[in-house]
Amino acid sequence: MVKVVILGSGNVGYHLSKIFLSSNNVDLIQVYSRNIHTIEFLKDKVSITDNINSLLNADIYIIAISDGSIVEFSKSLPHLNKLVVHTSGSISIDAINSENKGVLYPLQTFSKNKEIDFKNIPLCIETSNEKSLVLLQELASAISDQVFLINSEQRAKIHLAAVFVNNFVNHLYEIGQQICKANEIPFEILHPLIKETSEKIMTCSPKNAQTGPAKRNDQETIKKQLKQLNMDDAKVYETLTQSILKIYS
Amino acid sequence: MVKVVILGSGNVGYHLSKIFLSSNNVDLIQVYSRNIHTIEFLKDKVSITDNINSLLNADIYIIAISDGSIVEFSKSLPHLNKLVVHTSGSISIDAINSENKGVLYPLQTFSKNKEIDFKNIPLCIETSNEKSLVLLQELASAISDQVFLINSEQRAKIHLAAVFVNNFVNHLYEIGQQICKANEIPFEILHPLIKETSEKIMTCSPKNAQTGPAKRNDQETIKKQLKQLNMDDAKVYETLTQSILKIYS
Repeated sequence: MVKVVILGSGNVGYHLSKIFLSSNNVDLIQVYSRNIHTIEFLKDKVSITDNINSLLNADIYIIAISDGSIVEFSKSLPHLNKLVVHTSGSISIDAINSENKGVLYPLQTFSKNKEIDFKNIPLCIETSNEKSLVLLQELASAISDQVFLINSEQRAKIHLAAVFVNNFVNHLYEIGQQICKANEIPFEILHPLIKETSEKIMTCSPKNAQTGPAKRNDQETIKKQLKQLNMDDAKVYETLTQSILKIYS
Repeated sequence: MVKVVILGSGNVGYHLSKIFLSSNNVDLIQVYSRNIHTIEFLKDKVSITDNINSLLNADIYIIAISDGSIVEFSKSLPHLNKLVVHTSGSISIDAINSENKGVLYPLQTFSKNKEIDFKNIPLCIETSNEKSLVLLQELASAISDQVFLINSEQRAKIHLAAVFVNNFVNHLYEIGQQICKANEIPFEILHPLIKETSEKIMTCSPKNAQTGPAKRNDQETIKKQLKQLNMDDAKVYETLTQSILKIYS
C-alpha cells in the first residue's frame, strides 16, 4: 500500500486527504499545514503537524499549495529521499528541489463545500524517473479511472485550455447572472441552457455547435445588445464577438 | 385542442414541429417553408406548403425564421385574424404586423441532430391581449413544465444574458479545443472539468465558484499564459482577465 503525506490544506489538499482516507489502496499517514487549525478536523483520522521537520516516513510527499509558493516551499523541505510531487497545472516538474520528483495534477475545479467524484477526474502524472512513475501511477489509479502520462509542456497547455473552459466560462456565467439580477429575472431560467451548452460539446465539436448573433454576423442584434451593456461587459462582448467573427466569416 | 401552423423550417421550427406532433394536446395542422424540400420529411404527418396564400385555418401561427426577416415576413402574410407569434429572444412583439400578436421564445439552443427534452425548456411567452395569453399559455404548457410570462424588455435582457452563457461560453470551448489540438492532447480530457464548471453554478453562485489566475491576481501565471497564445486568443484572455480582476480586486 502506498504511504502518502500531504503538504498543504487548500482545496486540492482537502479533497485528496478525503479520497485517500476512503481508499483501501492508499495509506495517508500524515497531513502538514503551517496553520495547524486548518487541518485539525483530520486529527482523529491521521497524524497532523505544522512542523516541517517532523514529517513521517512515506513513499510519496504531495505538495498541495498555491503555485507561487511551490519553489520556495520545496527548498524548505528536509531531505526526504523519496518521491516529492506537486499538484499544479501550470508549474514545471523542475520547480521541485529533489532528484526524485513528479507531478500529480487533478484536472478539475475544487471547492471545499462540494463533493467530488474522483473516479472520473483526469489525473495528469509525470515523474523524473521510471521507477517513480510506476509508484505514482499506482497511487493515481487507486483513486481515478482516468490517469494520463502528460509532460510539463503539455500540462501547461492543458492548464491554459482549462482557464478558458473553466475560469473564463464561469466568469461569463457571472456576467449572465448580473444581467438577470439587474432586470429582476431569476438566473435559474438560464440553467437549462447552460446545461445543454456544456453537454452538447460532448457529442458535437464546439465549432459545429456555435450559434448566435456573432456566428451569423447579425450586426443589427450585435449593435442593439452592445448598447444595453455597461462599459466593462461591452468590452467582453465586443472581444468575444470579434473572435467568433474571425472564425466564421 | 390548439390548432397550430408553423412558418419556417430552421432549428426552432424543426424541433417545435416534432414536439407538437408528439403532443396529445396540440394539433399541428400545417408547416410552411419557402423551400418545400426542407420540410418534405413531414409530408406524411402534416400538410406542408411553400405557398403563403394557402395557409390553413389555425388558432396560432408561429413564425420560426431568422430574427432579421421577421418584420418583412410578417408583412407578407395574408390577413389571418388569428394569433400570430414569433419565437425570437431579441425581437420585440411589435415586429409582428397583426393586432393579435405574441411571442413564444424557447430559451434553449437547438441543433437538428440533437434530441431536446422540451419539458425542461423555459418558454417565455407574451401576447398583445389577455385572451390570446390564455391560448398561448395552453399551447406552451402542453409542451413544457416551465412557462414564464416575460415582456419584450425583459426578454431582450434574457437573450443578452443567453449570448454570454451560451454563445460566448461555447466559443471558449472552441478555443480550449484548438489549444488541445495544437498540442496533441485529447479534448476529452477537459470534459469532466467542463461538466463540473457548469453544474457547480446550479448550487453555488458563479461569483463564489470563481477560481483561477485572474481571481488570485496571479500575474506571473497570467504573463506566462499570455505568451503561449496567438494574438487573437491573447486578446480574449486579456479582456476576460481584466474583467475578472475588476470584480475581485
